[in-house]
Amino acid sequence: MKVVTLAGGVGGAKLADGLARCLSPQDLTIVVNTGDDFVHFGLKICPDLDTVCYTLAGLANPETGWGRAGETWHTLNALEALGAPTWFQLGDQDLATHLERTRRLAEGETLSEVTQFFCQRWGIQHRVLPMSDDVVQTVVETDLGDLSFQEYFVKYRFEPSVRGFRFEGATQATAAPGVLEAITSSEIVIFCPSNPWVSIDPILAVSGVRQALLRAKVIAVSPIVGGKALKGPAAKMFAEIGIPPSVQAVALHYGSLLSGFVFDRLDAAEELEIRSVGVRTLVTDTVMKNPADRQRLATEILTFAQQELLP
Amino acid sequence: MKVVTLAGGVGGAKLADGLARCLSPQDLTIVVNTGDDFVHFGLKICPDLDTVCYTLAGLANPETGWGRAGETWHTLNALEALGAPTWFQLGDQDLATHLERTRRLAEGETLSEVTQFFCQRWGIQHRVLPMSDDVVQTVVETDLGDLSFQEYFVKYRFEPSVRGFRFEGATQATAAPGVLEAITSSEIVIFCPSNPWVSIDPILAVSGVRQALLRAKVIAVSPIVGGKALKGPAAKMFAEIGIPPSVQAVALHYGSLLSGFVFDRLDAAEELEIRSVGVRTLVTDTVMKNPADRQRLATEILTFAQQELLP
Repeated sequence: MKVVTLAGGVGGAKLADGLARCLSPQDLTIVVNTGDDFVHFGLKICPDLDTVCYTLAGLANPETGWGRAGETWHTLNALEALGAPTWFQLGDQDLATHLERTRRLAEGETLSEVTQFFCQRWGIQHRVLPMSDDVVQTVVETDLGDLSFQEYFVKYRFEPSVRGFRFEGATQATAAPGVLEAITSSEIVIFCPSNPWVSIDPILAVSGVRQALLRAKVIAVSPIVGGKALKGPAAKMFAEIGIPPSVQAVALHYGSLLSGFVFDRLDAAEELEIRSVGVRTLVTDTVMKNPADRQRLATEILTFAQQELLP
Repeated sequence: MKVVTLAGGVGGAKLADGLARCLSPQDLTIVVNTGDDFVHFGLKICPDLDTVCYTLAGLANPETGWGRAGETWHTLNALEALGAPTWFQLGDQDLATHLERTRRLAEGETLSEVTQFFCQRWGIQHRVLPMSDDVVQTVVETDLGDLSFQEYFVKYRFEPSVRGFRFEGATQATAAPGVLEAITSSEIVIFCPSNPWVSIDPILAVSGVRQALLRAKVIAVSPIVGGKALKGPAAKMFAEIGIPPSVQAVALHYGSLLSGFVFDRLDAAEELEIRSVGVRTLVTDTVMKNPADRQRLATEILTFAQQELLP
């Protein structure tokens, strides 16, 4: 079974890792949001790509889900001593990734090529693709004005009230090499339990992606559990946009793209209503606390896909 | 006595520090070579400015003369694990300087302003000025072709044979604010025992500097001791250009700019010939092994200036 998965940061990385534990490298392509990417201290930083790659490589910090295990903070401490902005946590090891990415991009490599280089170095066998090699910037429209995603998320700790979103550059952006081909030749596309507004939507906004998905069987995994987001501002965003956060709200958000929908037992009461719009459902434990959870959830989703969605 | 000193890296930083121990902040301006500056991993690195500032601030590594005391190397080790270029030693604390400089330049500050910021942060009271806020690039013409200074000096460990030098951008560059004013209002200008070819000459090449020096009493301190350079490629450069390295060669290099010349007791035999062209001389111990040496040499030079060069 050929599978493509769309992933954002921590939640997406966990399920992508689970899928990588179930599928061979030629059967899984992981397409990662780059709308959060930004330039900080002159360095190109790709938070979601890094989280996904660190997780797949077994380099991720298991406590936080982002950043690297055994990280040290000497440069950040020296920045703090200078009174420089330290709202974005730059670990010493993590910095090497940003430095080398910046260097390679300046030498003319594409983000896809740089990502492939990191995957090779870190022994990641499954294909990890940025959604685009072009710059797409997620702008969060808030009561404080327009904020880049990292400012909103990290600097302002997602406290400002959200009014809307824009993905600047998305319609002009070309999907990265292999993205559309992977989607159109896949049997299943899985939207990870990432934030629908700012992790999955930026990928869907890239020119050609929605079109390619029309021919695919799409399964989304809800990042909302019991009316709350496991991590980050997804529930808060739904509420501020005027939609009570729930698994139904997530399913409605993706609308007609969905063939299947996976959500937590906590929200089992909503199953009938979701099925009533013609979407197949899998109700299970969706919270991934450890690598075994990731693999178990991935296995269940793949079985569900095979049994309920494929001919 | 108002003094300006022109400085390159380690040797220049030591004498500048000695002068700062003798002169009040309003009486000393340190003008630093920026021809070695380069962009590495997207970061603006100013090796001579950093060496001078770290030394004046008491932050320098006393073993090497460059870099910071108590430095750690986590990012560099992670870069090495990635197979990234590690020929330039980027310490974790030092990296914070390059990151913050890059960030401030990108926000529109000039190199002078950034340097002033670092001096304030690090408690440096004497005025440290880059030679120019414009980019000037020292190119070393070698048997391997043209090399940027850092490539020549660090990456190739000054092994290629030198044919000549260029200071790209120097004639179009404007001296940084305060440089020409400091020179023209000074009683004495001291060329530190820095490399004449690649530390002092780039400063002299900046538009207006040579002109301003015509009105000043210039004292050069020889970086050549006993026919050898204390550090770095100065002697090798003289030889490859076809000039036997000696204190006389240094004095001739600066030519009519000089009013006074300071060199080591080891080379005392050359004193008469140097004096014969009308240059006053100070023969003393010029090797600075510790802060007391720096202060002693600076005191001797200032006394020499007062007694022999000023009315």
